[in-house]
Amino acid sequence: MRPSKRAPDELRAVSLERAVARYAEGSCLVSFGNTRVLCTATLEERGPPWLRGSGKGWVTAEYAMLPRATHERTRREVNSGKPSGRTQEIQRLIGRSLRAVTNLPALGERQITIDCDVIQADGGTRTASITGAWVALHDCLAWMRSRSIISVDPLKDHVAAVSCGIYKGQPVLDLDYAEDSAAETDANFVLTGKGGIVEVQGTAEGEPFSEAQFIELLGLAKAGIAQLVELQRKVIA
Amino acid sequence: MRPSKRAPDELRAVSLERAVARYAEGSCLVSFGNTRVLCTATLEERGPPWLRGSGKGWVTAEYAMLPRATHERTRREVNSGKPSGRTQEIQRLIGRSLRAVTNLPALGERQITIDCDVIQADGGTRTASITGAWVALHDCLAWMRSRSIISVDPLKDHVAAVSCGIYKGQPVLDLDYAEDSAAETDANFVLTGKGGIVEVQGTAEGEPFSEAQFIELLGLAKAGIAQLVELQRKVIA
Amino acid sequence: MRPSKRAPDELRAVSLERAVARYAEGSCLVSFGNTRVLCTATLEERGPPWLRGSGKGWVTAEYAMLPRATHERTRREVNSGKPSGRTQEIQRLIGRSLRAVTNLPALGERQITIDCDVIQADGGTRTASITGAWVALHDCLAWMRSRSIISVDPLKDHVAAVSCGIYKGQPVLDLDYAEDSAAETDANFVLTGKGGIVEVQGTAEGEPFSEAQFIELLGLAKAGIAQLVELQRKVIA
Amino acid sequence: MRPSKRAPDELRAVSLERAVARYAEGSCLVSFGNTRVLCTATLEERGPPWLRGSGKGWVTAEYAMLPRATHERTRREVNSGKPSGRTQEIQRLIGRSLRAVTNLPALGERQITIDCDVIQADGGTRTASITGAWVALHDCLAWMRSRSIISVDPLKDHVAAVSCGIYKGQPVLDLDYAEDSAAETDANFVLTGKGGIVEVQGTAEGEPFSEAQFIELLGLAKAGIAQLVELQRKVIA
Amino acid sequence: MRPSKRAPDELRAVSLERAVARYAEGSCLVSFGNTRVLCTATLEERGPPWLRGSGKGWVTAEYAMLPRATHERTRREVNSGKPSGRTQEIQRLIGRSLRAVTNLPALGERQITIDCDVIQADGGTRTASITGAWVALHDCLAWMRSRSIISVDPLKDHVAAVSCGIYKGQPVLDLDYAEDSAAETDANFVLTGKGGIVEVQGTAEGEPFSEAQFIELLGLAKAGIAQLVELQRKVIA
Amino acid sequence: MRPSKRAPDELRAVSLERAVARYAEGSCLVSFGNTRVLCTATLEERGPPWLRGSGKGWVTAEYAMLPRATHERTRREVNSGKPSGRTQEIQRLIGRSLRAVTNLPALGERQITIDCDVIQADGGTRTASITGAWVALHDCLAWMRSRSIISVDPLKDHVAAVSCGIYKGQPVLDLDYAEDSAAETDANFVLTGKGGIVEVQGTAEGEPFSEAQFIELLGLAKAGIAQLVELQRKVIA
Repeated sequence: MRPSKRAPDELRAVSLERAVARYAEGSCLVSFGNTRVLCTATLEERGPPWLRGSGKGWVTAEYAMLPRATHERTRREVNSGKPSGRTQEIQRLIGRSLRAVTNLPALGERQITIDCDVIQADGGTRTASITGAWVALHDCLAWMRSRSIISVDPLKDHVAAVSCGIYKGQPVLDLDYAEDSAAETDANFVLTGKGGIVEVQGTAEGEPFSEAQFIELLGLAKAGIAQLVELQRKVIA
Repeated sequence: MRPSKRAPDELRAVSLERAVARYAEGSCLVSFGNTRVLCTATLEERGPPWLRGSGKGWVTAEYAMLPRATHERTRREVNSGKPSGRTQEIQRLIGRSLRAVTNLPALGERQITIDCDVIQADGGTRTASITGAWVALHDCLAWMRSRSIISVDPLKDHVAAVSCGIYKGQPVLDLDYAEDSAAETDANFVLTGKGGIVEVQGTAEGEPFSEAQFIELLGLAKAGIAQLVELQRKVIA
Repeated sequence: MRPSKRAPDELRAVSLERAVARYAEGSCLVSFGNTRVLCTATLEERGPPWLRGSGKGWVTAEYAMLPRATHERTRREVNSGKPSGRTQEIQRLIGRSLRAVTNLPALGERQITIDCDVIQADGGTRTASITGAWVALHDCLAWMRSRSIISVDPLKDHVAAVSCGIYKGQPVLDLDYAEDSAAETDANFVLTGKGGIVEVQGTAEGEPFSEAQFIELLGLAKAGIAQLVELQRKVIA
Repeated sequence: MRPSKRAPDELRAVSLERAVARYAEGSCLVSFGNTRVLCTATLEERGPPWLRGSGKGWVTAEYAMLPRATHERTRREVNSGKPSGRTQEIQRLIGRSLRAVTNLPALGERQITIDCDVIQADGGTRTASITGAWVALHDCLAWMRSRSIISVDPLKDHVAAVSCGIYKGQPVLDLDYAEDSAAETDANFVLTGKGGIVEVQGTAEGEPFSEAQFIELLGLAKAGIAQLVELQRKVIA
Repeated sequence: MRPSKRAPDELRAVSLERAVARYAEGSCLVSFGNTRVLCTATLEERGPPWLRGSGKGWVTAEYAMLPRATHERTRREVNSGKPSGRTQEIQRLIGRSLRAVTNLPALGERQITIDCDVIQADGGTRTASITGAWVALHDCLAWMRSRSIISVDPLKDHVAAVSCGIYKGQPVLDLDYAEDSAAETDANFVLTGKGGIVEVQGTAEGEPFSEAQFIELLGLAKAGIAQLVELQRKVIA
Repeated sequence: MRPSKRAPDELRAVSLERAVARYAEGSCLVSFGNTRVLCTATLEERGPPWLRGSGKGWVTAEYAMLPRATHERTRREVNSGKPSGRTQEIQRLIGRSLRAVTNLPALGERQITIDCDVIQADGGTRTASITGAWVALHDCLAWMRSRSIISVDPLKDHVAAVSCGIYKGQPVLDLDYAEDSAAETDANFVLTGKGGIVEVQGTAEGEPFSEAQFIELLGLAKAGIAQLVELQRKVIA
């Protein structure tokens, strides 16, 4: 029995609210149960230095948590001079996921930065961020097309993500904090709208897991992400 | 004529929404027009090292802006190793303002940290922060009394703040961003519920200003802060 | 009774010694009683990046204390990677005060940096710095005119500063360290030669203060700064 | 055809040389073709602070590259104040992998740090590090048993790792640098001697990959890691 | 011919002014021609952590330059997070030199920090610092004896220092900046009152130098340091 | 009697192994007994900014220790944001020594960086680094000539280095760690193939030393360095 009483293959209540930030070119407040992340997209007319002259654009992401997004207050990273390893790992994951469905040459030499700021954290903040970031990116690109900054749509597909894990021996979908902190195995999956795999990460927290278990987690993720993509479709319609 | 069509002595629409953060001991989302700041209060059972053995507690504040709170995206401070001078100045101001109305010995050797995170910035973020932080602090103290952590109320009075300035030669109350960036003189006032002055800061951005002008700004601030205190009273009732 | 036996409206012995640094384009050793600050002016032929192409120059300031300027040794800031919030606040205040009386376009695209290094600290180091920095700036500008680097004098007025405070219930002028550390209210005033206000900062250290008290402090400051400006006039004559 | 002419399921020449560092409690120089990593184990009698009083020990890892391990010289990380995100990600992976096969309570409250310093880099440095680090850890534990510091062997199993990828549409085992920089998909697998999965990471560099492709990569990894474990068995015999 | 017209074995005008810092336990303003360094001694009742329980004390030094001590303004080191390599090298040299003539057990578990702040720099700042620091240390120890903090004098001997170099082929004593920046060889000597060598550092800036030349430099230094020690004797008398 | 049973004027077993790093333009693994340093040379086609337009090249060095090169593990410097003072001192010494025998204009506007990474440390790592770095530099220059990047040989002479010290009252050559940590006096000498002195550094760790003792150390160094230069000649032949 899951702490939240959900079925093993049941997502939390998920919502995607658009246009929540007055100044951003695109934005989305994504909720997976009590996890809430504000995703904003910023267009910059200058791409990163290493793409100068290539004709290609770039999509990147930054991620942070408000100090009291968590049960216990988390110290701000500002005093340490660099984002923590965990933060860097997450923001690279979000950026890679978005670039996997973006036609970078179609962007021109521009950069879009997606900021994912966790307002409240109850597990799955990185996968919620990816799912919401796609909406913010979509709206930023729509904003650009409406102003004729670009003429073709650089988005090739949807991308969404979910975490799965083995909790008390049972593979389950979309871990919340209570499950996440007790899970034996924890995995994150990032898939496209067509079902292609963009990223797979699985870690045994305690005992090693078997290939069969891993395939089962992948199956849960595929079904869950299909629902998330469906929701993305609905909100942008 | 002010860009927002407000009268010279007119505040923006102000709201104070309580209990907006699931895990914090007290919280308030404060809005002054389009300026929105999330204030959360965290109780720590350990005071700062320099008060060990004194029997006194401490109230401190941290302040930050989400990168896309602003018209143009602002770079995160995380890479610079320390909050900027502006950030430090603001968080010290918020902390001093709250301590001015708190009976620190009544807290016991505990620390309350108020995090003020600017979700959207349209001028006056530091004064909005102080006004909302007082509510978060109030609710944290109520939470403590309800659990018998403290027996007497350490709050001695309300505290609220507002900015004033001289805009196109006219003293006006509660500058928004459009006014703030063009004002000749910019001043912040922090006052208590009884009308005592906690902090006054006035800066000539262009020409020096006169004593008479300064007195006029102070008059606007007193009237505006009285309304803010009244609103605080209403929401905690 | 003040610890120094001074009358409430009495400045400490103030002196301004010019040309104390062999290599600087202008310099002044300012003393307010036992507080001593070395102010040096450096001309750079290149302005800051954000003014490139504007035809305007810039005046900026840096501030630091020698470690044993104080009763107890203060640790050098070099190990912390950034000046403290207090240091940044002071150096911005000095810079703003000097720019308020400088005609920046008349400077051309050049920068003058005023370094204020506190040799000995007995209260009022930031206001002494402003008062002495004006002399160093004046001499740097005279040096520039004597070499025909500029043709018109960019200085529009004098600027000087003093602290005031409420000490044992009594408003007093020019706090020394003994008073400063015990004052109920502490205020800094920066005024021009013509009496215009450039900056006002008042903070209640304990109880909030009233409007009437604040007006009284401003009155003391106006009289004190008039004497400081008179002294500046004398030493540059 | 692979640049190295290897068959798709063929490892590079792998060697594990023990006792290469005079002062370390255990050490191993691991080579996967031209990739060479020096792994040293250091025993500290004090565990990390968060395990104080728990009776459990800890195994951690640090990872770095010599500047000219690579084709082009890589700048030292020393000037940046923190290991890069990539470095932190790798050292956390190595540490987790080793802890997955270590009985931490059997260590007592001690810490073993495995330093993995890449002497030469030709792809697969993180997986080579894990494979060699296990030998250094093994020898450190043997050293401890020989001195009766511990009485039971804390090692529960072998652990080894290898990278796989899709190169020109073909799933291949143990990518070298030439393949790695051109692969469409890149995956790292960490498995135990008994074949349990400790960590799986797969990333689409270009097009998303399919479940079937991923299963194929896992198959290659299982066969390759079985050979690596066999080699570990031989060298410690 | 030396730029300053001095004879090859002639020191600049040297002065040692005591008790120049109101709050320090000992202080000395040392001048070697236009080079001026303020040396202050601070007593701390706590020694460094690595001497805890040893019964021994410590003498250490810090060194810095005011920004406009030099012909061109030097940027403050505060923004770089650590003293530069040159600064660290100099402060370690000063500390070692002073400890070579101090009986550390006689100090008890205390630390004396000598701050050497260069007010004006015209070559030889590190050797002037050592020469002046000895006087500040002497006066700090006298202050301690006068308060019965220590009963025996921990000072075993004088220590003083001077630079020598080969300038236009000629070995010369006490280089000023004009000579220093053009010298082929630059050497610093630290000697005790009895003529023992504490530190020798010689560097060929251009061509390597010979043993004979080095011996000649050492001879100049011995004669020069004898005069410096004599001056120290006079000022403390 | 020396701990290693060597005669006072006897070097440890020294070896210089060339071409040990696959990707570097020149490399040398130098051993002085148990001290082992990997020296690699990297050619960059761009010189340092301050030589732009001068037609001159530059030779620089970086130095680091692997964490377990030492008896006790040494913490990596990566977390401190800057190399330690000791590291900076050593890398400047190596760079100066190499430049003393290099014709910089003959290099053209290029930079050669010699990385000296200590694999194992048993005393004398900086002098071993200089001795091995010369070989790596030599091979890098030969590589450049073989590709006609330069036409004349920029090397003017050999350079090698050794440490000497006074150990139990006896001047001895080439201190190992056991001697170094107990020596009364410690000196490093850098000499050219023709016997010119490039650098001399002598420090009294305990009692000051005399001129006669210093001359004796220099004599040992000259004889030792002659043997090192002879070995360099042999390996490059």
